[in-house]
Amino acid sequence: MSGVITPLPPVSLVLGGARSGKSRYAEALVDRHPGRRTYLATAEVLDDEMAARVKTHRERRDSDWRTVEEPLDLAGALKAETEQGAAVLVDCLTLWLGNLLGQARDVEAEIAGLVAALGQFGGPVVFVSNEVGQGIVPDNALARRFRDLAGILHQRLAEKADHVVFVTAGLPMKLK
Amino acid sequence: MSGVITPLPPVSLVLGGARSGKSRYAEALVDRHPGRRTYLATAEVLDDEMAARVKTHRERRDSDWRTVEEPLDLAGALKAETEQGAAVLVDCLTLWLGNLLGQARDVEAEIAGLVAALGQFGGPVVFVSNEVGQGIVPDNALARRFRDLAGILHQRLAEKADHVVFVTAGLPMKLK
Amino acid sequence: MSGVITPLPPVSLVLGGARSGKSRYAEALVDRHPGRRTYLATAEVLDDEMAARVKTHRERRDSDWRTVEEPLDLAGALKAETEQGAAVLVDCLTLWLGNLLGQARDVEAEIAGLVAALGQFGGPVVFVSNEVGQGIVPDNALARRFRDLAGILHQRLAEKADHVVFVTAGLPMKLK
Repeated sequence: MSGVITPLPPVSLVLGGARSGKSRYAEALVDRHPGRRTYLATAEVLDDEMAARVKTHRERRDSDWRTVEEPLDLAGALKAETEQGAAVLVDCLTLWLGNLLGQARDVEAEIAGLVAALGQFGGPVVFVSNEVGQGIVPDNALARRFRDLAGILHQRLAEKADHVVFVTAGLPMKLK
Repeated sequence: MSGVITPLPPVSLVLGGARSGKSRYAEALVDRHPGRRTYLATAEVLDDEMAARVKTHRERRDSDWRTVEEPLDLAGALKAETEQGAAVLVDCLTLWLGNLLGQARDVEAEIAGLVAALGQFGGPVVFVSNEVGQGIVPDNALARRFRDLAGILHQRLAEKADHVVFVTAGLPMKLK
Repeated sequence: MSGVITPLPPVSLVLGGARSGKSRYAEALVDRHPGRRTYLATAEVLDDEMAARVKTHRERRDSDWRTVEEPLDLAGALKAETEQGAAVLVDCLTLWLGNLLGQARDVEAEIAGLVAALGQFGGPVVFVSNEVGQGIVPDNALARRFRDLAGILHQRLAEKADHVVFVTAGLPMKLK
Protein backbone atom coordinates (compact mmCIF):
# COMPACT_ATOMS: atom_id res chain seq x y z
CA MET A 1 0.00 0.00 0.00
CA SER A 2 3.08 2.20 -0.06
CA GLY A 3 3.86 4.82 -2.67
CA VAL A 4 1.55 7.10 -4.61
CA ILE A 5 -2.17 6.64 -4.01
CA THR A 6 -3.78 5.82 -7.34
CA PRO A 7 -7.50 5.33 -8.04
CA LEU A 8 -8.85 1.82 -7.52
CA PRO A 9 -8.98 -0.18 -10.76
CA PRO A 10 -12.37 -1.63 -11.82
CA VAL A 11 -11.69 -5.18 -10.56
CA SER A 12 -9.24 -6.37 -7.87
CA LEU A 13 -8.81 -9.89 -6.50
CA VAL A 14 -7.21 -10.44 -3.09
CA LEU A 15 -6.29 -14.08 -2.39
CA GLY A 16 -4.79 -15.59 0.75
CA GLY A 17 -5.02 -18.41 3.24
CA ALA A 18 -6.98 -18.46 6.49
CA ARG A 19 -6.10 -15.54 8.76
CA SER A 20 -3.63 -14.22 6.23
CA GLY A 21 -4.69 -10.60 6.58
CA LYS A 22 -6.38 -10.63 3.16
CA SER A 23 -9.57 -8.88 4.36
CA ARG A 24 -7.57 -6.19 6.12
CA TYR A 25 -5.49 -5.61 2.99
CA ALA A 26 -8.66 -5.42 0.88
CA GLU A 27 -10.24 -2.94 3.29
CA ALA A 28 -7.18 -0.69 3.09
CA LEU A 29 -7.47 -0.89 -0.69
CA VAL A 30 -11.15 0.14 -0.69
CA ASP A 31 -10.46 2.86 1.87
CA ARG A 32 -8.55 4.69 -0.87
CA HIS A 33 -11.84 5.17 -2.72
CA PRO A 34 -13.04 8.75 -2.25
CA GLY A 35 -16.76 7.94 -2.54
CA ARG A 36 -19.16 5.62 -0.76
CA ARG A 37 -17.92 2.17 0.30
CA THR A 38 -19.91 -0.99 0.79
CA TYR A 39 -18.89 -4.16 2.61
CA LEU A 40 -20.73 -6.97 0.86
CA ALA A 41 -20.71 -9.93 3.24
CA THR A 42 -21.48 -13.29 1.64
CA ALA A 43 -21.56 -14.98 5.04
CA GLU A 44 -24.77 -16.38 6.37
CA VAL A 45 -24.38 -15.97 10.10
CA LEU A 46 -25.41 -19.41 11.29
CA ASP A 47 -23.32 -19.97 14.42
CA ASP A 48 -21.40 -18.19 17.18
CA GLU A 49 -18.02 -18.72 15.53
CA MET A 50 -19.23 -16.95 12.41
CA ALA A 51 -20.93 -14.20 14.40
CA ALA A 52 -17.67 -13.46 16.21
CA ARG A 53 -15.81 -13.21 12.91
CA VAL A 54 -18.34 -10.83 11.36
CA LYS A 55 -18.26 -8.66 14.50
CA THR A 56 -14.45 -8.41 14.36
CA HIS A 57 -14.57 -7.40 10.72
CA ARG A 58 -17.31 -4.84 11.36
CA GLU A 59 -15.46 -3.20 14.26
CA ARG A 60 -12.40 -2.75 12.06
CA ARG A 61 -14.25 -0.67 9.51
CA ASP A 62 -15.22 2.91 10.28
CA SER A 63 -18.70 4.40 10.08
CA ASP A 64 -18.24 5.43 6.44
CA TRP A 65 -18.90 1.88 5.40
CA ARG A 66 -22.31 0.47 4.57
CA THR A 67 -22.74 -3.26 5.18
CA VAL A 68 -24.87 -5.46 2.93
CA GLU A 69 -25.41 -9.20 3.28
CA GLU A 70 -25.96 -11.23 0.12
CA PRO A 71 -25.24 -14.96 0.25
CA LEU A 72 -26.25 -15.88 -3.32
CA ASP A 73 -26.96 -13.16 -5.92
CA LEU A 74 -23.55 -11.51 -6.04
CA ALA A 75 -23.81 -10.02 -9.51
CA GLY A 76 -27.18 -8.47 -8.71
CA ALA A 77 -26.00 -7.00 -5.41
CA LEU A 78 -22.84 -5.63 -7.05
CA LYS A 79 -24.83 -3.94 -9.80
CA ALA A 80 -27.17 -2.34 -7.25
CA GLU A 81 -24.41 -1.24 -4.87
CA THR A 82 -22.07 0.21 -7.49
CA GLU A 83 -24.85 2.14 -9.27
CA GLN A 84 -23.87 5.44 -7.67
CA GLY A 85 -20.12 4.82 -8.08
CA ALA A 86 -19.59 3.20 -4.69
CA ALA A 87 -16.62 0.87 -4.21
CA VAL A 88 -17.60 -2.60 -2.99
CA LEU A 89 -15.56 -5.10 -1.00
CA VAL A 90 -16.85 -8.67 -1.45
CA ASP A 91 -15.85 -10.82 1.52
CA CYS A 92 -15.58 -13.57 0.54
CA LEU A 93 -15.97 -15.63 -2.61
CA THR A 94 -15.26 -19.02 -1.05
CA LEU A 95 -18.19 -18.52 1.33
CA TRP A 96 -20.32 -17.59 -1.68
CA LEU A 97 -19.31 -20.87 -3.37
CA GLY A 98 -20.19 -22.73 -0.19
CA ASN A 99 -23.61 -21.06 -0.13
CA LEU A 100 -24.27 -21.99 -3.77
CA LEU A 101 -23.27 -25.61 -3.14
CA GLY A 102 -25.51 -25.67 -0.06
CA GLN A 103 -28.43 -24.57 -2.24
CA ALA A 104 -27.59 -27.11 -4.96
CA ARG A 105 -27.23 -24.33 -7.53
CA ASP A 106 -25.45 -24.81 -10.87
CA VAL A 107 -22.18 -23.37 -9.59
CA GLU A 108 -20.36 -23.31 -12.93
CA ALA A 109 -23.24 -21.24 -14.38
CA GLU A 110 -23.14 -18.88 -11.40
CA ILE A 111 -19.39 -18.41 -11.84
CA ALA A 112 -19.88 -17.70 -15.54
CA GLY A 113 -22.61 -15.19 -14.67
CA LEU A 114 -20.40 -13.33 -12.22
CA VAL A 115 -17.49 -13.20 -14.66
CA ALA A 116 -19.80 -11.97 -17.44
CA ALA A 117 -21.11 -9.20 -15.16
CA LEU A 118 -17.64 -7.81 -14.38
CA GLY A 119 -17.82 -5.10 -17.06
CA GLN A 120 -21.24 -3.88 -15.91
CA PHE A 121 -20.48 -2.38 -12.51
CA GLY A 122 -20.64 1.36 -11.85
CA GLY A 123 -17.78 1.42 -9.34
CA PRO A 124 -14.65 -0.49 -8.38
CA VAL A 125 -15.01 -3.96 -6.86
CA VAL A 126 -12.48 -5.76 -4.65
CA PHE A 127 -13.04 -9.51 -4.27
CA VAL A 128 -11.55 -11.39 -1.32
CA SER A 129 -11.18 -15.16 -1.55
CA ASN A 130 -9.51 -18.02 0.30
CA GLU A 131 -6.79 -20.11 -1.22
CA VAL A 132 -7.93 -23.66 -0.36
CA GLY A 133 -6.05 -25.83 -2.87
CA GLN A 134 -2.55 -26.10 -1.41
CA GLY A 135 -3.08 -28.86 1.13
CA ILE A 136 -3.48 -32.62 0.85
CA VAL A 137 -6.31 -33.80 -1.45
CA PRO A 138 -9.44 -33.98 0.75
CA ASP A 139 -10.99 -37.38 1.46
CA ASN A 140 -14.52 -36.49 0.52
CA ALA A 141 -15.83 -35.69 -2.95
CA LEU A 142 -17.74 -32.55 -1.88
CA ALA A 143 -14.59 -30.94 -0.48
CA ARG A 144 -12.72 -31.87 -3.68
CA ARG A 145 -15.50 -30.33 -5.76
CA PHE A 146 -15.44 -27.20 -3.59
CA ARG A 147 -11.72 -26.66 -4.04
CA ASP A 148 -11.95 -27.36 -7.76
CA LEU A 149 -14.68 -24.72 -8.07
CA ALA A 150 -12.65 -22.25 -6.01
CA GLY A 151 -9.63 -22.77 -8.27
CA ILE A 152 -11.74 -22.36 -11.42
CA LEU A 153 -13.36 -19.18 -10.07
CA HIS A 154 -9.99 -17.70 -9.09
CA GLN A 155 -8.55 -18.40 -12.55
CA ARG A 156 -11.53 -16.86 -14.34
CA LEU A 157 -11.54 -13.75 -12.14
CA ALA A 158 -7.77 -13.32 -12.22
CA GLU A 159 -7.85 -13.37 -16.01
CA LYS A 160 -10.29 -10.42 -16.06
CA ALA A 161 -9.03 -8.56 -12.98
CA ASP A 162 -6.81 -5.50 -13.22
CA HIS A 163 -5.05 -6.18 -9.93
CA VAL A 164 -4.41 -9.54 -8.23
CA VAL A 165 -2.47 -10.00 -4.99
CA PHE A 166 -1.73 -12.95 -2.74
CA VAL A 167 -1.51 -12.06 0.96
CA THR A 168 0.65 -14.06 3.38
CA ALA A 169 1.16 -13.01 7.02
CA GLY A 170 -0.41 -9.65 6.14
CA LEU A 171 2.12 -9.01 3.37
CA PRO A 172 0.96 -8.75 -0.27
CA MET A 173 2.67 -10.33 -3.25
CA LYS A 174 1.54 -8.84 -6.54
CA LEU A 175 0.50 -11.52 -9.04
CA LYS A 176 -0.89 -9.09 -11.65
CA MET B 1 4.82 -15.87 -20.93
CA SER B 2 5.17 -12.29 -22.13
CA GLY B 3 8.16 -10.82 -23.90
CA VAL B 4 10.64 -12.47 -26.23
CA ILE B 5 10.14 -16.18 -26.89
CA THR B 6 13.29 -17.98 -25.81
CA PRO B 7 14.07 -21.70 -26.21
CA LEU B 8 12.85 -23.97 -23.43
CA PRO B 9 15.58 -24.68 -20.87
CA PRO B 10 16.47 -28.35 -20.20
CA VAL B 11 14.43 -28.69 -16.98
CA SER B 12 11.43 -26.65 -15.80
CA LEU B 13 9.28 -27.21 -12.71
CA VAL B 14 5.75 -25.79 -12.52
CA LEU B 15 4.22 -25.93 -9.04
CA GLY B 16 0.76 -24.90 -7.92
CA GLY B 17 -2.28 -25.88 -5.90
CA ALA B 18 -5.35 -27.74 -7.15
CA ARG B 19 -6.97 -26.04 -10.17
CA SER B 20 -4.36 -23.33 -10.12
CA GLY B 21 -3.83 -23.32 -13.89
CA LYS B 22 -0.42 -24.99 -13.55
CA SER B 23 -1.03 -27.55 -16.35
CA ARG B 24 -2.26 -24.83 -18.69
CA TYR B 25 0.80 -22.72 -17.95
CA ALA B 26 3.08 -25.73 -18.53
CA GLU B 27 1.35 -26.52 -21.82
CA ALA B 28 1.87 -22.96 -23.03
CA LEU B 29 5.53 -23.33 -22.09
CA VAL B 30 5.94 -26.57 -24.05
CA ASP B 31 4.01 -25.10 -26.99
CA ARG B 32 6.97 -22.80 -27.53
CA HIS B 33 9.06 -25.83 -28.48
CA PRO B 34 9.47 -25.95 -32.26
CA GLY B 35 9.78 -29.76 -32.47
CA ARG B 36 7.66 -32.69 -31.37
CA ARG B 37 5.80 -32.46 -28.05
CA THR B 38 4.75 -35.26 -25.75
CA TYR B 39 2.21 -35.16 -22.94
CA LEU B 40 3.40 -37.74 -20.42
CA ALA B 41 0.43 -38.56 -18.20
CA THR B 42 1.28 -40.24 -14.90
CA ALA B 43 -2.41 -40.77 -14.13
CA GLU B 44 -3.86 -44.22 -14.02
CA VAL B 45 -7.42 -43.69 -15.14
CA LEU B 46 -9.28 -45.62 -12.48
CA ASP B 47 -12.56 -43.76 -12.07
CA ASP B 48 -14.96 -41.39 -13.82
CA GLU B 49 -13.66 -38.32 -12.02
CA MET B 50 -10.14 -38.98 -13.31
CA ALA B 51 -11.39 -39.84 -16.80
CA ALA B 52 -13.18 -36.48 -16.99
CA ARG B 53 -10.00 -34.66 -15.96
CA VAL B 54 -7.85 -36.42 -18.53
CA LYS B 55 -10.43 -35.70 -21.24
CA THR B 56 -10.45 -31.98 -20.38
CA HIS B 57 -6.67 -31.84 -20.54
CA ARG B 58 -6.60 -33.74 -23.84
CA GLU B 59 -9.15 -31.47 -25.51
CA ARG B 60 -7.07 -28.44 -24.59
CA ARG B 61 -4.03 -29.66 -26.48
CA ASP B 62 -3.95 -29.57 -30.26
CA SER B 63 -3.22 -32.49 -32.54
CA ASP B 64 0.54 -31.78 -32.57
CA TRP B 65 0.83 -33.45 -29.20
CA ARG B 66 1.51 -37.11 -28.64
CA THR B 67 0.12 -38.59 -25.42
CA VAL B 68 1.95 -41.27 -23.45
CA GLU B 69 0.80 -42.84 -20.17
CA GLU B 70 3.46 -43.97 -17.73
CA PRO B 71 2.47 -44.35 -14.08
CA LEU B 72 5.80 -45.61 -12.68
CA ASP B 73 8.98 -45.53 -14.82
CA LEU B 74 9.26 -41.79 -15.39
CA ALA B 75 13.01 -41.66 -16.08
CA GLY B 76 12.76 -44.45 -18.64
CA ALA B 77 9.80 -42.87 -20.44
CA LEU B 78 11.51 -39.48 -20.46
CA LYS B 79 14.68 -40.92 -21.98
CA ALA B 80 12.66 -42.70 -24.68
CA GLU B 81 10.43 -39.72 -25.50
CA THR B 82 13.18 -37.09 -25.62
CA GLU B 83 15.48 -39.22 -27.78
CA GLN B 84 14.59 -37.33 -30.95
CA GLY B 85 14.68 -33.93 -29.25
CA ALA B 86 10.98 -33.83 -28.35
CA ALA B 87 9.85 -31.65 -25.45
CA VAL B 88 7.94 -33.54 -22.75
CA LEU B 89 5.34 -32.27 -20.32
CA VAL B 90 5.08 -34.52 -17.23
CA ASP B 91 1.64 -34.14 -15.63
CA CYS B 92 1.98 -34.65 -12.76
CA LEU B 93 4.61 -35.65 -10.23
CA THR B 94 2.30 -35.92 -7.21
CA LEU B 95 0.26 -38.57 -9.04
CA TRP B 96 3.52 -40.38 -9.80
CA LEU B 97 4.38 -40.35 -6.08
CA GLY B 98 0.93 -41.70 -5.30
CA ASN B 99 1.41 -44.50 -7.84
CA LEU B 100 4.80 -45.44 -6.32
CA LEU B 101 3.33 -45.49 -2.81
CA GLY B 102 0.43 -47.62 -4.06
CA GLN B 103 2.95 -50.15 -5.43
CA ALA B 104 4.99 -50.10 -2.20
CA ARG B 105 8.09 -48.96 -4.11
CA ASP B 106 11.16 -47.45 -2.40
CA VAL B 107 10.05 -43.88 -3.13
CA GLU B 108 13.23 -42.15 -1.93
CA ALA B 109 15.25 -44.34 -4.32
CA GLU B 110 12.85 -43.56 -7.18
CA ILE B 111 13.18 -39.82 -6.47
CA ALA B 112 16.98 -40.12 -6.44
CA GLY B 113 16.83 -42.03 -9.73
CA LEU B 114 14.72 -39.35 -11.41
CA VAL B 115 16.97 -36.55 -10.18
CA ALA B 116 20.08 -38.45 -11.34
CA ALA B 117 18.53 -38.91 -14.80
CA LEU B 118 17.91 -35.17 -15.32
CA GLY B 119 21.11 -34.63 -17.29
CA GLN B 120 20.44 -37.55 -19.64
CA PHE B 121 17.42 -36.34 -21.60
CA GLY B 122 17.62 -35.44 -25.27
CA GLY B 123 15.02 -32.65 -25.11
CA PRO B 124 13.51 -30.18 -22.67
CA VAL B 125 11.28 -31.48 -19.89
CA VAL B 126 8.60 -29.54 -18.01
CA PHE B 127 7.42 -31.13 -14.75
CA VAL B 128 4.05 -30.21 -13.25
CA SER B 129 3.44 -30.92 -9.57
CA ASN B 130 0.91 -30.11 -6.87
CA GLU B 131 1.76 -28.10 -3.80
CA VAL B 132 0.20 -30.19 -1.00
CA GLY B 133 2.07 -29.03 2.11
CA GLN B 134 0.41 -25.74 3.01
CA GLY B 135 -2.64 -26.98 4.85
CA ILE B 136 -3.18 -28.44 8.31
CA VAL B 137 -1.04 -31.50 9.16
CA PRO B 138 -3.07 -34.53 7.97
CA ASP B 139 -4.44 -36.97 10.55
CA ASN B 140 -3.10 -40.12 8.96
CA ALA B 141 0.51 -41.19 8.63
CA LEU B 142 0.28 -42.13 4.94
CA ALA B 143 -0.91 -38.64 3.99
CA ARG B 144 1.91 -37.14 6.08
CA ARG B 145 4.42 -39.38 4.36
CA PHE B 146 2.99 -38.43 0.97
CA ARG B 147 3.34 -34.71 1.58
CA ASP B 148 6.83 -35.18 3.02
CA LEU B 149 7.87 -37.04 -0.14
CA ALA B 150 6.29 -34.39 -2.35
CA GLY B 151 8.21 -31.66 -0.51
CA ILE B 152 11.49 -33.58 -0.76
CA LEU B 153 10.96 -34.23 -4.49
CA HIS B 154 10.14 -30.57 -5.15
CA GLN B 155 13.27 -29.41 -3.33
CA ARG B 156 15.52 -31.87 -5.18
CA LEU B 157 14.08 -30.99 -8.59
CA ALA B 158 14.04 -27.24 -7.93
CA GLU B 159 17.72 -27.39 -7.04
CA LYS B 160 18.55 -28.88 -10.46
CA ALA B 161 15.91 -27.11 -12.54
CA ASP B 162 16.68 -24.12 -14.73
CA HIS B 163 13.24 -22.58 -14.36
CA VAL B 164 10.82 -22.91 -11.43
CA VAL B 165 7.45 -21.14 -11.19
CA PHE B 166 4.56 -21.24 -8.76
CA VAL B 167 1.15 -20.74 -10.35
CA THR B 168 -1.78 -19.21 -8.43
CA ALA B 169 -5.10 -18.40 -10.10
CA GLY B 170 -3.43 -18.96 -13.48
CA LEU B 171 -0.72 -16.38 -12.74
CA PRO B 172 2.94 -17.46 -12.50
CA MET B 173 5.40 -16.29 -9.88
CA LYS B 174 8.99 -16.98 -10.83
CA LEU B 175 10.89 -18.77 -8.04
CA LYS B 176 14.03 -19.45 -10.10
CA MET C 1 21.36 -16.18 -0.04
CA SER C 2 23.30 -14.86 -3.00
CA GLY C 3 25.06 -11.53 -3.15
CA VAL C 4 26.81 -9.56 -0.44
CA ILE C 5 26.72 -11.06 3.05
CA THR C 6 25.10 -8.53 5.35
CA PRO C 7 24.62 -8.83 9.12
CA LEU C 8 21.48 -10.60 10.28
CA PRO C 9 18.67 -8.15 11.11
CA PRO C 10 17.16 -8.33 14.63
CA VAL C 11 14.07 -10.34 13.65
CA SER C 12 13.54 -12.63 10.65
CA LEU C 13 10.53 -14.81 9.88
CA VAL C 14 10.84 -17.79 7.54
CA LEU C 15 7.51 -19.27 6.45
CA GLY C 16 6.85 -22.30 4.28
CA GLY C 17 4.83 -25.47 3.89
CA ALA C 18 5.79 -28.95 5.06
CA ARG C 19 9.19 -30.07 3.71
CA SER C 20 9.61 -26.78 1.89
CA GLY C 21 13.25 -26.32 2.88
CA LYS C 22 12.36 -23.51 5.31
CA SER C 23 14.55 -24.85 8.16
CA ARG C 24 17.51 -25.29 5.85
CA TYR C 25 17.08 -21.74 4.55
CA ALA C 26 16.86 -20.42 8.11
CA GLU C 27 19.99 -22.34 9.12
CA ALA C 28 21.93 -20.85 6.22
CA LEU C 29 20.71 -17.41 7.36
CA VAL C 30 21.87 -17.95 10.95
CA ASP C 31 25.18 -19.42 9.71
CA ARG C 32 26.06 -15.92 8.49
CA HIS C 33 26.18 -14.80 12.13
CA PRO C 34 29.83 -14.50 13.22
CA GLY C 35 29.19 -15.28 16.91
CA ARG C 36 27.56 -18.14 18.81
CA ARG C 37 24.47 -19.82 17.32
CA THR C 38 21.67 -21.59 19.12
CA TYR C 39 19.10 -23.94 17.67
CA LEU C 40 16.01 -23.53 19.83
CA ALA C 41 13.81 -26.57 19.26
CA THR C 42 10.18 -26.19 20.32
CA ALA C 43 9.51 -29.86 19.61
CA GLU C 44 8.69 -32.21 22.41
CA VAL C 45 10.10 -35.48 21.21
CA LEU C 46 7.17 -37.78 21.89
CA ASP C 47 7.38 -40.40 19.14
CA ASP C 48 9.77 -42.06 16.69
CA GLU C 49 8.61 -39.94 13.74
CA MET C 50 9.51 -36.78 15.64
CA ALA C 51 12.80 -38.24 16.90
CA ALA C 52 13.84 -39.00 13.31
CA ARG C 53 13.06 -35.42 12.27
CA VAL C 54 15.05 -33.88 15.10
CA LYS C 55 18.00 -36.19 14.32
CA THR C 56 17.99 -35.15 10.64
CA HIS C 57 17.97 -31.49 11.60
CA ARG C 58 20.75 -32.00 14.14
CA GLU C 59 23.04 -33.83 11.70
CA ARG C 60 22.68 -30.96 9.22
CA ARG C 61 24.10 -28.40 11.63
CA ASP C 62 27.79 -28.34 12.44
CA SER C 63 29.34 -28.48 15.90
CA ASP C 64 29.31 -24.67 16.28
CA TRP C 65 25.65 -24.86 17.12
CA ARG C 66 24.25 -25.23 20.60
CA THR C 67 20.87 -26.96 20.86
CA VAL C 68 18.24 -25.93 23.42
CA GLU C 69 14.77 -27.45 23.82
CA GLU C 70 11.99 -25.18 25.04
CA PRO C 71 8.41 -26.20 24.30
CA LEU C 72 6.59 -23.35 26.07
CA ASP C 73 8.51 -20.29 27.37
CA LEU C 74 9.88 -18.98 24.10
CA ALA C 75 10.38 -15.36 25.16
CA GLY C 76 12.28 -16.42 28.28
CA ALA C 77 14.53 -18.82 26.40
CA LEU C 78 15.22 -16.23 23.70
CA LYS C 79 16.20 -13.60 26.29
CA ALA C 80 18.55 -16.06 28.00
CA GLU C 81 20.12 -17.38 24.79
CA THR C 82 20.67 -13.99 23.12
CA GLU C 83 22.18 -12.40 26.25
CA GLN C 84 25.73 -12.76 24.97
CA GLY C 85 24.85 -11.73 21.41
CA ALA C 86 24.18 -15.22 20.11
CA ALA C 87 21.91 -15.67 17.09
CA VAL C 88 18.97 -18.00 17.72
CA LEU C 89 17.01 -20.11 15.25
CA VAL C 90 13.52 -20.97 16.57
CA ASP C 91 12.23 -24.13 14.89
CA CYS C 92 9.30 -23.92 14.82
CA LEU C 93 6.47 -21.65 15.90
CA THR C 94 3.61 -23.91 14.82
CA LEU C 95 4.91 -26.65 17.14
CA TRP C 96 5.07 -24.03 19.90
CA LEU C 97 1.41 -23.15 19.28
CA GLY C 98 0.54 -26.83 19.39
CA ASN C 99 2.36 -27.19 22.72
CA LEU C 100 0.49 -24.19 24.18
CA LEU C 101 -2.86 -25.57 23.02
CA GLY C 102 -1.97 -28.95 24.51
CA GLN C 103 -1.34 -27.27 27.87
CA ALA C 104 -4.58 -25.27 27.64
CA ARG C 105 -2.65 -21.99 27.88
CA ASP C 106 -4.12 -18.59 26.92
CA VAL C 107 -2.55 -18.68 23.47
CA GLU C 108 -3.51 -15.12 22.44
CA ALA C 109 -1.77 -13.84 25.59
CA GLU C 110 1.31 -15.94 24.85
CA ILE C 111 1.44 -14.56 21.30
CA ALA C 112 1.14 -11.01 22.62
CA GLY C 113 3.92 -11.72 25.12
CA LEU C 114 6.27 -13.01 22.42
CA VAL C 115 5.56 -10.05 20.14
CA ALA C 116 6.11 -7.61 23.04
CA ALA C 117 9.46 -9.25 23.81
CA LEU C 118 10.81 -8.81 20.28
CA GLY C 119 12.69 -5.61 21.11
CA GLN C 120 14.38 -7.10 24.19
CA PHE C 121 16.71 -9.68 22.68
CA GLY C 122 20.49 -9.29 22.74
CA GLY C 123 21.08 -10.99 19.39
CA PRO C 124 19.33 -11.73 16.10
CA VAL C 125 16.44 -14.19 16.06
CA VAL C 126 15.19 -16.20 13.08
CA PHE C 127 11.73 -17.73 13.50
CA VAL C 128 10.66 -20.68 11.36
CA SER C 129 6.96 -21.44 11.02
CA ASN C 130 4.65 -23.60 8.93
CA GLU C 131 2.05 -22.18 6.60
CA VAL C 132 -1.04 -24.24 7.49
CA GLY C 133 -3.92 -22.08 6.20
CA GLN C 134 -3.98 -22.74 2.46
CA GLY C 135 -5.89 -26.00 2.38
CA ILE C 136 -9.54 -26.89 2.79
CA VAL C 137 -11.16 -25.69 6.05
CA PRO C 138 -10.57 -28.48 8.59
CA ASP C 139 -13.56 -30.43 9.90
CA ASN C 140 -12.80 -30.09 13.57
CA ALA C 141 -12.89 -26.91 15.63
CA LEU C 142 -9.49 -27.45 17.29
CA ALA C 143 -7.72 -27.62 13.93
CA ARG C 144 -9.59 -24.49 12.81
CA ARG C 145 -8.54 -22.71 16.00
CA PHE C 146 -4.95 -23.87 15.49
CA ARG C 147 -4.74 -22.48 11.98
CA ASP C 148 -6.44 -19.25 13.05
CA LEU C 149 -3.83 -18.81 15.80
CA ALA C 150 -1.00 -19.60 13.38
CA GLY C 151 -2.28 -16.97 10.96
CA ILE C 152 -2.65 -14.37 13.71
CA LEU C 153 0.87 -15.10 15.02
CA HIS C 154 2.37 -14.85 11.53
CA GLN C 155 0.66 -11.50 10.89
CA ARG C 156 1.82 -10.05 14.22
CA LEU C 157 5.41 -11.24 13.78
CA ALA C 158 5.60 -10.21 10.12
CA GLU C 159 4.49 -6.71 11.07
CA LYS C 160 7.44 -6.36 13.48
CA ALA C 161 10.01 -8.43 11.57
CA ASP C 162 12.78 -6.87 9.50
CA HIS C 163 12.93 -9.74 7.04
CA VAL C 164 10.14 -12.12 5.99
CA VAL C 165 10.49 -14.85 3.36
CA PHE C 166 8.25 -17.61 2.11
CA VAL C 167 10.11 -20.77 1.06
CA THR C 168 8.74 -23.12 -1.63
CA ALA C 169 10.73 -26.11 -2.93
CA GLY C 170 13.80 -24.70 -1.17
CA LEU C 171 13.50 -21.37 -2.99
CA PRO C 172 12.81 -18.16 -1.03
CA MET C 173 10.39 -15.44 -2.03
CA LYS C 174 10.96 -12.19 -0.17
CA LEU C 175 7.75 -10.84 1.37
CA LYS C 176 9.43 -8.04 3.34
